[in-house]
Amino acid sequence: MKKESPLFWPAYLKGDILFVLDETLVPKQLKYVKVRNIDEAVAVICEMKTRAFGQFLVVLSTFLLEFNRQPQLNGEELLEKIRNVAHALNHSRPTFPFSEVTSVVVHWAHGALDAGQDVRAIVIKNVNGYLQGIRHRRLDRVAKIAANIKDGDSVLTHCNVSGELAMAAAICREQKKDVQFYCTETRPYFQGAKLTYWELKQMGADVTLVADNAIATLMADKMVNKVIVGSDRNCANGDFANKIGTYQIAVLANEFKVPMLVLTQPSQKIKSGADIPVEIRDESELLQFNGRKVFSSKVKGLYPGFDVVPHHYVRKEIAIDVH
Amino acid sequence: MKKESPLFWPAYLKGDILFVLDETLVPKQLKYVKVRNIDEAVAVICEMKTRAFGQFLVVLSTFLLEFNRQPQLNGEELLEKIRNVAHALNHSRPTFPFSEVTSVVVHWAHGALDAGQDVRAIVIKNVNGYLQGIRHRRLDRVAKIAANIKDGDSVLTHCNVSGELAMAAAICREQKKDVQFYCTETRPYFQGAKLTYWELKQMGADVTLVADNAIATLMADKMVNKVIVGSDRNCANGDFANKIGTYQIAVLANEFKVPMLVLTQPSQKIKSGADIPVEIRDESELLQFNGRKVFSSKVKGLYPGFDVVPHHYVRKEIAIDVH
Repeated sequence: MKKESPLFWPAYLKGDILFVLDETLVPKQLKYVKVRNIDEAVAVICEMKTRAFGQFLVVLSTFLLEFNRQPQLNGEELLEKIRNVAHALNHSRPTFPFSEVTSVVVHWAHGALDAGQDVRAIVIKNVNGYLQGIRHRRLDRVAKIAANIKDGDSVLTHCNVSGELAMAAAICREQKKDVQFYCTETRPYFQGAKLTYWELKQMGADVTLVADNAIATLMADKMVNKVIVGSDRNCANGDFANKIGTYQIAVLANEFKVPMLVLTQPSQKIKSGADIPVEIRDESELLQFNGRKVFSSKVKGLYPGFDVVPHHYVRKEIAIDVH
Repeated sequence: MKKESPLFWPAYLKGDILFVLDETLVPKQLKYVKVRNIDEAVAVICEMKTRAFGQFLVVLSTFLLEFNRQPQLNGEELLEKIRNVAHALNHSRPTFPFSEVTSVVVHWAHGALDAGQDVRAIVIKNVNGYLQGIRHRRLDRVAKIAANIKDGDSVLTHCNVSGELAMAAAICREQKKDVQFYCTETRPYFQGAKLTYWELKQMGADVTLVADNAIATLMADKMVNKVIVGSDRNCANGDFANKIGTYQIAVLANEFKVPMLVLTQPSQKIKSGADIPVEIRDESELLQFNGRKVFSSKVKGLYPGFDVVPHHYVRKEIAIDVH
């Protein structure tokens, strides 16, 4: 049985190339897109080949990529380069808090330059240290998720939480807990059907796929007793943004008194959900299935990519420790 | 502009053949399946080529079909034939109340036989009269739906209500009401994307397709101010069964204070929702898209076909008059 899902760490740098797992092809293929520069990094984000945590890895790694490509730059030129890369990344998609990440890198470069240090060495060291720190904290959160799942639980999840739930399921299995999972299809992109079902299964979990429409009946019939979902952005007041469909699951969990646990990364930068701009994605994506058009091109669709969920629906946060 | 949607009357008898609109092919093709006998009638129902009201038409018309095929039967043989046809229809699918319809026909035949009347003539006359009565009452309900839609309304619907909402939309348009419609995709079968969107568009309505996951956000953002859905079975206490996903829309409508209107056919035969058996359809249907398999055959799915919605979520019933 595997212990680490490919979705847990879906992008890694090898020499001058960033290998990014193409999540749109999973589970049919495990294929990595090669990203060589900032333009290709923005493309892989815009095309949603990588999502959520994968985007985070791409953003951080892109600085290293661009550094490797231009070994001749001096400190000031490196700072300028970092600012340009940060700007391009920040404007690639509205929902993910890219600027929270990129501003840290800009800050490091600025500090190193001001202190007369080697900008290149400092930034590379800090980015790598940051990535390793995140890795350890995510593994900690996997353990916390497992601790929150009890013997006999039946857990509903939505969209995909990048390996963490699947790895928690593997821990539960080692601990001989009898746990069932239900995962939604997660239209329009089917992340649940394609990613979550697959990785839970890979980890040996007992998982059942349901339509996004089946949640009320599942809860009314007491077939699930816990909801665990991820979050793409967190607010100071506990509101959070996550894949479209999360809001209604939160309302239903509240109505049927099913505890809803949200995997968070606490942040004080956004005050409340009202301050999160919701990304309206192109309607054509609603009308495609695995990249092929399935409805008439004359169909008018509306596709808000994310929900902003008010905090009062959340029973418990399972947070990544913030140092 | 068309005034009657093909979905409003999706099955009609012509000589010895019942022509049943294959709703699985709409909107790509308007094709009618030829049904010649009870076995073909059961098949067309089981394969869900016709739904809800179409099933009702198929059930009634199948008695006429079988009568036409066997002109030599006497009164007692006809009653026996009717009982056999009723039995086969009653056991074709659990959710639709076939026995409520078939028992009426058995009753007519029985009464005619007891009274020494011409069983064949009586049953044919009554079935035809019944169908015409239903047609008039449905047209009445279309007018009632239109009267419940106000200028400026933005109406969310789910699944498909067999022509009635689309025809009401046409009336609203004639009355110069400015109305927007949102229809859900309605996974797993996509009745909303395939049937409802198409027929609302045919009637000249302003309609937008949304994923089933987008309802909470639509309501939270006040983009819809009314929900109108159909019902497949109605209970004496107001509970009703309808396509999976209706229950969660009802909970959300309640949470966001959006009035929910349900098209009903009042019945005292079922006391409450607890008495409705919910059909669990084959999981393979969840894993297909337009008849082609899209997920691995090893995926375990659960596909409850219908929701049973408690009456307290319903703001108003728009009923078919019962005489």
